[in-house]
Amino acid sequence: MQKQVEYKEAIGTKYPEQVVIAIAKDKAGKANPVTLGWTMIASGSPPMMAIAVASRHYSIETIRHSKCFTIVFPSSEMADAALFFGSRTGRDIDKFADFDCKTEPAKAIDSVLLCDAVANFECELESETVAGDHIIFVGKIVCSHINTEPKKRLYTVGPGHRLGAVS
Amino acid sequence: MQKQVEYKEAIGTKYPEQVVIAIAKDKAGKANPVTLGWTMIASGSPPMMAIAVASRHYSIETIRHSKCFTIVFPSSEMADAALFFGSRTGRDIDKFADFDCKTEPAKAIDSVLLCDAVANFECELESETVAGDHIIFVGKIVCSHINTEPKKRLYTVGPGHRLGAVS
Repeated sequence: MQKQVEYKEAIGTKYPEQVVIAIAKDKAGKANPVTLGWTMIASGSPPMMAIAVASRHYSIETIRHSKCFTIVFPSSEMADAALFFGSRTGRDIDKFADFDCKTEPAKAIDSVLLCDAVANFECELESETVAGDHIIFVGKIVCSHINTEPKKRLYTVGPGHRLGAVS
Repeated sequence: MQKQVEYKEAIGTKYPEQVVIAIAKDKAGKANPVTLGWTMIASGSPPMMAIAVASRHYSIETIRHSKCFTIVFPSSEMADAALFFGSRTGRDIDKFADFDCKTEPAKAIDSVLLCDAVANFECELESETVAGDHIIFVGKIVCSHINTEPKKRLYTVGPGHRLGAVS
């Protein structure tokens, strides 16, 4: 049976929610990672993914500047990196300089991959759409990578940015 | 360490992926449910959600006609309903007539809720954006409901529409 409640209560049923890290370079060439839970596949052919990024975030500027970005599926071992990248702003710091996280250059776009992730998807910016206090960026996937070792994806498993694996 | 692979191989690392059922009425007033894995929250204030629907799907017509839709978080007990709603087309059949699934009228929009779901979100159509072979619909959430009993969400846990709970 359903009962009507406030949105904030209802959305508490969403967990586990997948986590991705989106990375784009800013004008100075600094790669800036941001952790996002609001993401989905958006097209099968050609393959595309969508991310929703808060309008005030520095990532908006970096994606608009680069017109491309990496979408990373972090592994369940990368919870600390995901928390760090999601709680600081690239306006003030160089996140990759301040948090030890192995990167390598992307192959088809001007961005970076995360070496220890489950998978990396290189995206060319296809469109952006305002949605309330966020902007939805759709990227066409032009190159894909997976880890040579089997890894589990990272999820937000409950409120308060509680991160972990699921099975 | 990363290795470059085809997209189809890389996207195989996406599981578990959340499942929702989107419901909109067609011109004849028939409520038409469709099961979707490509969905995300898109805005915090006002709350909005996005769904990506294949361009050829009957649901496209129903959402455009209604200008509103329900997003349902099905429970882990609703795998059979999710498979049925996701594998038939409302062009040919009345899915709710052919599959036993308890519904009740939505409160703020002209759609229905699924009584046994984890949660139901009533959405007013906010925007649509073409993304490859899909259309992204963004809906503003105007009314929210949860089950009076605690329930687990349904996920696709592996290839071949393998559905279940996660923990």
